[in-house]
Amino acid sequence: MKPTGPIPPYFEADADSQLLIGGVSAEELVADAGGTPLFVYDNNIVGAQIASLKAAMPDGLAIYYSVTANPYEPLLNFLGRYVDGFRVVSLGELNHLKRAGLAGIGMTFAGPGKGDDELERGISAGATISVESEGEAARAIRAGERAGIRPKLAVRVNPPFSIDSRGLTLGARPTPFGVDAERVPSLVEGLLDAGVDWRGLHIFAAAQCLDDSALIEAHKAIISCAGDICRSLDRPLPELNLGGGFDVPCFAGEQPIDIYRLANALHETVRNGPELLATTRLSLELGRWLVAECGVYLTRVLDRTESCGETFLTTDGGGHHLLGATGCLLERGRGNFPIAVANKFGTPAEEQVTVTGCLATPHDIFGDEVMLPPAEVGNLIAIFCAGAYGLSASPQGWESRPSAREMLV
Amino acid sequence: MKPTGPIPPYFEADADSQLLIGGVSAEELVADAGGTPLFVYDNNIVGAQIASLKAAMPDGLAIYYSVTANPYEPLLNFLGRYVDGFRVVSLGELNHLKRAGLAGIGMTFAGPGKGDDELERGISAGATISVESEGEAARAIRAGERAGIRPKLAVRVNPPFSIDSRGLTLGARPTPFGVDAERVPSLVEGLLDAGVDWRGLHIFAAAQCLDDSALIEAHKAIISCAGDICRSLDRPLPELNLGGGFDVPCFAGEQPIDIYRLANALHETVRNGPELLATTRLSLELGRWLVAECGVYLTRVLDRTESCGETFLTTDGGGHHLLGATGCLLERGRGNFPIAVANKFGTPAEEQVTVTGCLATPHDIFGDEVMLPPAEVGNLIAIFCAGAYGLSASPQGWESRPSAREMLV
Repeated sequence: MKPTGPIPPYFEADADSQLLIGGVSAEELVADAGGTPLFVYDNNIVGAQIASLKAAMPDGLAIYYSVTANPYEPLLNFLGRYVDGFRVVSLGELNHLKRAGLAGIGMTFAGPGKGDDELERGISAGATISVESEGEAARAIRAGERAGIRPKLAVRVNPPFSIDSRGLTLGARPTPFGVDAERVPSLVEGLLDAGVDWRGLHIFAAAQCLDDSALIEAHKAIISCAGDICRSLDRPLPELNLGGGFDVPCFAGEQPIDIYRLANALHETVRNGPELLATTRLSLELGRWLVAECGVYLTRVLDRTESCGETFLTTDGGGHHLLGATGCLLERGRGNFPIAVANKFGTPAEEQVTVTGCLATPHDIFGDEVMLPPAEVGNLIAIFCAGAYGLSASPQGWESRPSAREMLV
Repeated sequence: MKPTGPIPPYFEADADSQLLIGGVSAEELVADAGGTPLFVYDNNIVGAQIASLKAAMPDGLAIYYSVTANPYEPLLNFLGRYVDGFRVVSLGELNHLKRAGLAGIGMTFAGPGKGDDELERGISAGATISVESEGEAARAIRAGERAGIRPKLAVRVNPPFSIDSRGLTLGARPTPFGVDAERVPSLVEGLLDAGVDWRGLHIFAAAQCLDDSALIEAHKAIISCAGDICRSLDRPLPELNLGGGFDVPCFAGEQPIDIYRLANALHETVRNGPELLATTRLSLELGRWLVAECGVYLTRVLDRTESCGETFLTTDGGGHHLLGATGCLLERGRGNFPIAVANKFGTPAEEQVTVTGCLATPHDIFGDEVMLPPAEVGNLIAIFCAGAYGLSASPQGWESRPSAREMLV
């Protein structure tokens, strides 16, 4: 028996032990959607995450949603009512925002490898371009000239520090992400001389991080680094984008980030921070933390087999929809995502089974030797924490299988 | 400096050091296709692989192409002239064959998690269904009744051995892939009693394997296992599908499989093999080995930057098209795929650079600290061994970026 990640605290069952999502049973949602596999996103959970973040964080701190985490347009439309803007990294993401009715909203356009066309269309759409290199800055200025628009440019900084944490650590090493900190002042002076609308700095130091202390250290170091750059420029900083990097617990033993602890430390750091940052707008860009827990992936059991004394449930889903929850292409070092039998939610977990997807690879496993209530062919399996980096981060064309359905409730 | 995998021996340059694919320069191919990123597949290379395999292997051995490796329809159409059939694992793959003009060709339909509709449509299309469990066998019989067709069924066996190799090893452990060998005779007797057209056994023991000796051992063990099952049934075996699992060298230091050595050993094993297999049709199912080397992924340099003293080339491609060649989601334990500057093919590799894709993740690396001829913005980068598990095995929706183009030459 191997453990599973914690089911987010928002979910409960009805009197018949049917999992409810947004107050509706999983079976009813599947019937409404027309079948499985199905991603259901509960907007109340997204709303609760945003509300708790806003309550904790300093007044005036801007919250941006990173579209890459989940570009489902009804979800973007919902988020548009509550966040201060969006982070996009491609024209495709920009077009998702337009189709979600959010053409006029604040946007930062980030990421390396922006083509000339992307720069021009991003500038035309009013986005702040986060330039990753001197070469890209020069191309952005020319793109603004072509568009006849004074471009809004921020500078992504490759900071001279890195943070020790279990997550993905960025900074203090050679990278195509951002300009080495010591070259930033001269780049910004060049931008100001060229007459662009300089919008500030982006400095990220972590991703997929659950370690409060590491994030607090990262924020301190980012603010100190930004202060150094501003002193060198001898001018105040319009905006400092602290990046994101907040993860949610998906695996056994993981603990959620303490947002209040983070926020208190950020208050403190800002209060004691560099004078030139006193009027700076702070911003956070979050993806996974805002939407991962709102999503449930529902897949139906197609077969129940025995092999070498173990029981397998084969479902109609798989890593082509939710790669991160399977062992496909990934080491399973972190274990099993939270998983349940949706038709027997909260009933005793009396049986050890391995729950697989339908792909013809032995890595396509959602639940490796997990304890669940006894499930039969036709039952629904629910995989939680499926709201971020699901469909769009999975190889949907693998084995030429149908895409999953999606639904916002 | 880190090494790269070997460029397949089929590629050369013209007098201007332009990489030729199928006799045409990479730049011309990109112009014909309308831009980058572009997958080019050279049918002469596929033809050469098939010809060498047929020359080596025993007469009458059937070669099936595993559509999952690359479902590009013009490539399927080309393959249809030379292979004995196709392996599909989904209705989507079956439909690719139909659209490629191959509706009547031999097919095996394999993989766990086949739905009732898939079984019925597979049987109606004339495919041999490789059943993975007793439950699936029962559903396949019912699907044949619904379709009014006597179903052709083979049985996938979970063999009682495993092969020690560097590749992916299957068998001798609990799995949803196939029926434990000791239960196979009674399952086959049940199928015969039910009046199905029993087509034989599928026994796979390896995947992604470059180890001749391990494959030879696997074939011996498979034939022995099949012999045991036939003795228990006391009847000859119509067909024995040996699976596939032949890899090609993609990383530094890897050596190609010696097809002649494999074939000689297989001849020997069959000659000395069980009497009940004397009339058995042998078959191999190959994907990667047939098509990986025919493919080149072409992507254009968008930016050239320096960071902490190192040089980065950022391209317009990425792991959303060719996940296996990047570090995205995968450990980079095996290193760099073969890579070249297509406009300077065969010229001296005088510069150490890191070649990245355009995705906003630090794992999106095609060439990590590789030596290449000095490349500029606008040059084409070629990544080889891109003909298998490329576009269809990659998260094409990641960051909502455009798909790659594809072309058969």
